[in-house]
Amino acid sequence: MKLYDSAAAPNPRRVRIFLAEKGVEVEVVQVDIGTGENRKPPFLAKNPMGGLPVLELDDGRFLAETVAICRYFEETHPDPPLMGTDAADRAWVEMWNRRMEHEIALNCMQAFRQTHDFFKGRIPQVPEYGAVCKEAALKRLAWLDTELADREFVAGERFTIADITAMVGIDFGRVSKIAIDPAQKNLQRWHEAVSSRPSAKA
Amino acid sequence: MKLYDSAAAPNPRRVRIFLAEKGVEVEVVQVDIGTGENRKPPFLAKNPMGGLPVLELDDGRFLAETVAICRYFEETHPDPPLMGTDAADRAWVEMWNRRMEHEIALNCMQAFRQTHDFFKGRIPQVPEYGAVCKEAALKRLAWLDTELADREFVAGERFTIADITAMVGIDFGRVSKIAIDPAQKNLQRWHEAVSSRPSAKA
Repeated sequence: MKLYDSAAAPNPRRVRIFLAEKGVEVEVVQVDIGTGENRKPPFLAKNPMGGLPVLELDDGRFLAETVAICRYFEETHPDPPLMGTDAADRAWVEMWNRRMEHEIALNCMQAFRQTHDFFKGRIPQVPEYGAVCKEAALKRLAWLDTELADREFVAGERFTIADITAMVGIDFGRVSKIAIDPAQKNLQRWHEAVSSRPSAKA
Repeated sequence: MKLYDSAAAPNPRRVRIFLAEKGVEVEVVQVDIGTGENRKPPFLAKNPMGGLPVLELDDGRFLAETVAICRYFEETHPDPPLMGTDAADRAWVEMWNRRMEHEIALNCMQAFRQTHDFFKGRIPQVPEYGAVCKEAALKRLAWLDTELADREFVAGERFTIADITAMVGIDFGRVSKIAIDPAQKNLQRWHEAVSSRPSAKA
């Protein structure tokens, strides 16, 4: 089993943190997104979408998509559970993970992709849409602050994949000047807590 | 248990098809997105994101997010399996479902949201981004045609949630003039097959 990874990109960081929380070690292969290695044929044969990370399974198949990779490890290494503990809880964690993905992480990523020089010439950039995504991310941070008033973690009293997605999304937002407001005390408390876990450095 | 549904919107259709394939019947409450009922306080108390569908669980919690709702029913009504059959297969189906969501369905939805009069004044529209999404969706349909050359369904030889996501996304693309090219024979064959299942009318 091999994990195709990229040190600087947010989605690979989600999987590295997930594995660190599980205490799972996997052989890692770095892919250089700076030179566009992930957009060239050898890598595109592994993942036609060009995205990272990708997990090469022992049967030779290439499993792409961050959350699909996490789900594989959740099932093969169930402890500690990071994606829920029973049918209703697994659905509940999935809801929160998707909210963190779609409302926060993807908005932070789009704010970068649509405006930053790194993506100039790589994708058809629409800076105006990047600005909309930045505003949406900031609005959702304010909302998440209110959600965290009465519980410790994003999906409840237990650390889950939803916390990983939210933290990685927010941390990646920094490059686009998307940041937690000092007045957002609940969000700050949560961010300090999740950032101080050893897995955050993975 | 109650399902908050909207007859015309694509995400609620995904859940209705999923339930029809499972043979599960649930009490349904229609929410009028035409009048913006889903963006007003009574509904926002159920789902602060304003999205549909939402499943009211028997314990009083409101479960939002299409795929989270599907996962709940997959676990409580495992037959027929629509989200995979073992750890590797569940991850594999999740990968394909996410590809269908992010590469096809979301691009079709954004092509509509960013350009159509329905969303004028409801969201900050960026028509240029809608055009980019339309191009991306068409490019991904061409890719999906090649993927379907050697297998019956999106994720393999079994009908799964990935087929539902792809079909609903593609069908919703029609309003934005995103359509399967007659030369895309594999994609056409697949679309005819999934559209002729009784669940497609749900």
